[in-house]
Amino acid sequence: MTDAPMTAPAATTTAGEVLSRYLNEQAGLFLRALPQAVGEAGARPGVLPSLNSPTGSAGTGELLRAVRRIGGALHTFGAAFEPSWAQESRTELRWLLNLLAQEPAYLRRSTRLLAALDTLSSTGSTAPLGSAGESTGPGMLAGHQGAPKARALLDRQLTLARTRAHSLVLQDLRSSRLHALADRMTLLVGETPLVAAAAGQSCELLLPQAAAAFGALGQAVQLLPLQRAAMAYQGDALHRLGVVPAAPVPAQGRPAAAGDADGALAADDAPWHRTRILVKRARYALEVCGRPSTELDGLDQVLDRHQEAADAAVTVATAARTPRITPATAYVLGVVHADQRLEVEAARYAFGRQWPTLPQHGWHEWASA
Amino acid sequence: MTDAPMTAPAATTTAGEVLSRYLNEQAGLFLRALPQAVGEAGARPGVLPSLNSPTGSAGTGELLRAVRRIGGALHTFGAAFEPSWAQESRTELRWLLNLLAQEPAYLRRSTRLLAALDTLSSTGSTAPLGSAGESTGPGMLAGHQGAPKARALLDRQLTLARTRAHSLVLQDLRSSRLHALADRMTLLVGETPLVAAAAGQSCELLLPQAAAAFGALGQAVQLLPLQRAAMAYQGDALHRLGVVPAAPVPAQGRPAAAGDADGALAADDAPWHRTRILVKRARYALEVCGRPSTELDGLDQVLDRHQEAADAAVTVATAARTPRITPATAYVLGVVHADQRLEVEAARYAFGRQWPTLPQHGWHEWASA
Repeated sequence: MTDAPMTAPAATTTAGEVLSRYLNEQAGLFLRALPQAVGEAGARPGVLPSLNSPTGSAGTGELLRAVRRIGGALHTFGAAFEPSWAQESRTELRWLLNLLAQEPAYLRRSTRLLAALDTLSSTGSTAPLGSAGESTGPGMLAGHQGAPKARALLDRQLTLARTRAHSLVLQDLRSSRLHALADRMTLLVGETPLVAAAAGQSCELLLPQAAAAFGALGQAVQLLPLQRAAMAYQGDALHRLGVVPAAPVPAQGRPAAAGDADGALAADDAPWHRTRILVKRARYALEVCGRPSTELDGLDQVLDRHQEAADAAVTVATAARTPRITPATAYVLGVVHADQRLEVEAARYAFGRQWPTLPQHGWHEWASA
Repeated sequence: MTDAPMTAPAATTTAGEVLSRYLNEQAGLFLRALPQAVGEAGARPGVLPSLNSPTGSAGTGELLRAVRRIGGALHTFGAAFEPSWAQESRTELRWLLNLLAQEPAYLRRSTRLLAALDTLSSTGSTAPLGSAGESTGPGMLAGHQGAPKARALLDRQLTLARTRAHSLVLQDLRSSRLHALADRMTLLVGETPLVAAAAGQSCELLLPQAAAAFGALGQAVQLLPLQRAAMAYQGDALHRLGVVPAAPVPAQGRPAAAGDADGALAADDAPWHRTRILVKRARYALEVCGRPSTELDGLDQVLDRHQEAADAAVTVATAARTPRITPATAYVLGVVHADQRLEVEAARYAFGRQWPTLPQHGWHEWASA
């Protein structure tokens, strides 16, 4: 399954034909993946998917992919569709996205954090001069009481979160809301509710709308501190490590202050998370136009990594507020938190280097087409 | 006071004249700084120098500078000197260097770590979009119990270490060993104990010896994992964060395992620390030859930073093993440890970028001169 659409529009096709073909195809993928995703969820009530699969399960992954693309096309080329239908469809697709994305996200976060912990705790494999590595090796954790406890704590809390997300999925997969959405997609396979004008227009008219998606992305990127991010080791992430857990105190404690620190980090991350959404929209818009961009795919991956590291850091900071953990456990969580914020910084650095390589002249031309 | 010698050798001077002039000058600086350093130390029995001065005190700084340069010249151009005199002088200079460098190093480490803690705890000043910064500000630490406690713990332990180092200085500044070294330097102002051959040789003969210092540096750098260091965010430092404190247990605990982890990090740092010494030697050798190199000065600064960050990380890991600290304190220490190891990684990255810009063709020519 590639991310690109199977067909590129010919010059003689209309805008309506291009959009219909794309949406019919994606709706078909949606309907094919849906029973598989339901089956996977239902076949394992309470049983969690294997850690070996980063996206949880194949059916859910395919379903999410189609949901994102249909939602993106309805947003970017909104003027071409019957307005209330497009609006309702987007709301329902967003609901399904939020529902289904949780469990795989917890699974990936678990994989990420436990792997980070294992790497941080072991100095064996990458010793540059050999001597240090040989003298320590994988058994090095034996004397450290903090790392295994921190690992067990994170594993327990993430497994709990995944179980909760899974229960929600199980519950809502039987809901009438999902059935209604499936019916909506079945109709979309047959016919796209286009406004009359779009049906006849040349497919070149899609380009200004794709260009608008690019314009929104460009504006969001202008607000990012790219100059700082593009210099390695400027401490963009680490100097904002304000998430320091309050000492474990019961209800009369001051969670508000810890919330302030989390809030400051979240506010710092927010424009990057917003950019990630806009990258995806621009990426799907180009797919609709039959001009997929490997540069955008790369930026999308970088910002996915940014989002996942930022979320993982929040999870670690939350775990560090667990009452009655040992100082050794807390120390390890501090190191892991810093490591995840470093991943955030590294992703920003990668974005700052890749963004200027994105070919941008094209969509300026389309905008004036 | 600049680092470069005041005079560059003319083509007609002999090697002996160049060396004598350099050593006479540095010995004079030594003797001028010594009483000032003794006075500074004696004037404040138990009183520690102000945090405002990064090197502790001006006299000690000048003294250390002269000690390093005389020792470096005696090493690099060893063949020109009376062997037993040069050997003894270097031993005594190294003793004084180790004695005097401790206290300013603890002072710098204290400044570095407390500043890092303050930066990490505050997200107020650098918020890219304004909103986060305005809503938090410097008062953000109020609700965090870990950061002030970690700060107090590091401050207390480093102040204690500095006090111990200061007592040692006070004690040894009155020793006959220091008087003997001062006498040795007084003689050096008047006359340098050269071997007969060196006295008459052309100063061009110094160049192969300086080239040998460069060659030793080049060989050491070849052993460094420069390719990894030159790629930003390869986790060279963070993936070796093995220093996880054992839970506070008394004498029957297993400090050996924690020691293994420290040892692995130390073995990883060792080739970089060795390179730092060789950069200094090459730097001083070029000064003797009247060809100071700003590139070497830059590399020297980078590796000083590397050393200080690595030492600071050890201090933090040690502090995290203090019995009865709270989990919140330990968490903050974990973050600060990761931050210092990131500084180590950043210094390696900077070295990996600066090293190839060092003009190297010159000393190949000298080596064959």
